[in-house]
Amino acid sequence: MKRNERLIDFTNHLINRPNQMLNLNQLSKHYEVAKSSISEDLVFIKRVFERQGIGKVETFPGSLGGVKFSPDVTDELAKQKALDIIKLMEEDNRILPGGYIYLSDILGTPKNLKSIGQIIAHEYLGKDVDVVMTIATKGIPIAQAVAEILDVPFVIVRRDAKVTEGATLNVNYTSGSSSRVENMTLSKRSLSIGQRVLIVDDFMKGAGTINGMKSLVHEFDCFLAGVAVFLEGPFRGERLVEDYKSILRVDSIDVANRSIDVKLGNIFDKNLDLFEEKK
Amino acid sequence: MKRNERLIDFTNHLINRPNQMLNLNQLSKHYEVAKSSISEDLVFIKRVFERQGIGKVETFPGSLGGVKFSPDVTDELAKQKALDIIKLMEEDNRILPGGYIYLSDILGTPKNLKSIGQIIAHEYLGKDVDVVMTIATKGIPIAQAVAEILDVPFVIVRRDAKVTEGATLNVNYTSGSSSRVENMTLSKRSLSIGQRVLIVDDFMKGAGTINGMKSLVHEFDCFLAGVAVFLEGPFRGERLVEDYKSILRVDSIDVANRSIDVKLGNIFDKNLDLFEEKK
Repeated sequence: MKRNERLIDFTNHLINRPNQMLNLNQLSKHYEVAKSSISEDLVFIKRVFERQGIGKVETFPGSLGGVKFSPDVTDELAKQKALDIIKLMEEDNRILPGGYIYLSDILGTPKNLKSIGQIIAHEYLGKDVDVVMTIATKGIPIAQAVAEILDVPFVIVRRDAKVTEGATLNVNYTSGSSSRVENMTLSKRSLSIGQRVLIVDDFMKGAGTINGMKSLVHEFDCFLAGVAVFLEGPFRGERLVEDYKSILRVDSIDVANRSIDVKLGNIFDKNLDLFEEKK
Repeated sequence: MKRNERLIDFTNHLINRPNQMLNLNQLSKHYEVAKSSISEDLVFIKRVFERQGIGKVETFPGSLGGVKFSPDVTDELAKQKALDIIKLMEEDNRILPGGYIYLSDILGTPKNLKSIGQIIAHEYLGKDVDVVMTIATKGIPIAQAVAEILDVPFVIVRRDAKVTEGATLNVNYTSGSSSRVENMTLSKRSLSIGQRVLIVDDFMKGAGTINGMKSLVHEFDCFLAGVAVFLEGPFRGERLVEDYKSILRVDSIDVANRSIDVKLGNIFDKNLDLFEEKK
């Protein structure tokens, strides 16, 4: 394979193995060229990936040396992707009876999910996330999008235990807005002791559900790596969880005029980085 | 940008826009080179993508001409990916009380989901799928993986209507193994008349759930583009749906010895292509 062709194949190879350490000797064997040629290729790839905001390419020296591609967007691109979603959110006809917001179309479109995954992964890249956790149903596509970029598994908490989950660990939680006690459950074998868990969800108001997942993380003897939600809704009073990141924020819903005011969430607010301060 | 670097960036550009028509004039402007240079780049990319089994690169002539990248695996690679998942399936400790199979780890790992998506997309590529449909919960990651490759949206059927879905269309269905009548529901605005719907799910026995989704497709005045499941379980008697594709098949579960016999499903069985025959 000539260099031109190898660069094309190598680019694809890296993009499809995000956050995985690839051994340079194996790559050299795979492409049937000297390790030095692979290293030269990587100089090109690294330059383009970093300049074009595709992600970071790190090379590690030594006989066990390797290369790792971490897909990442720039701050600006992350913000632009969020603004693009705001445009979709402001479309007419999205306000449902009771002031709920219809989101299923946005969260059922691969392009949007990829953007959401990139924005959240951008925040937690390099922060040692072992596993992404969410609760069924609408958080699942978000968890999957984030997990794909970080190259970690994701686990799905449910409100009711299923026979296909085996032994489960259950916790009770109260929602932030009422004091009704509810139950959530996760398969016992989903997490291992000491794992760092990133909680994601589609929507948060009083943060009761998030708080329930936090207590699950604790009961599994795991650590919380962070909390990120797609949309933070209007809420009066104190939320049960303070350390969270949101991509978008809705402060008010005007049901009569069928309009909502969507703003960028606190993930873009670098000065109010509560989670970082408390660490 | 020199050719070497442009090829790297262009490769990434295509990979991240699966099944989208990209205009050659716009690409020429974007890279600030003549359209002929873009066409030359595409000769290289097309050759590598097709030889390495990355996918198909089609160019369309004319002033509105463009290029479309359709990620696709070869028959052999699709089969190899399924065999890799069989190895995971045969691990000990996967049989749950009642003879259920624990799959949440497999279906919560991005790499496996990508393989499952590639295998199913390989089957339905070019067959005009407008939207992927699944039922909550475990089918969702599979639907997302398939939809991402085909670049179409996915919709999630639920067993209970939620206030965040707006008006819903509901159907009753019976499971294949019992005659209990159940309900499934889908947001009215999820589908448009005449769309071609690919139904996917994680597991199928009597196909009652799949049959329910088929009647939803019908009630929405849509067309069935196909049915694909990850795992087909043991079932005695006649299934409610005959035209389906399965990636894997389990004929028997030996609860006493905690072992299962996992085989390749009928998606790899080119001679018994029931769905094709009946079309």
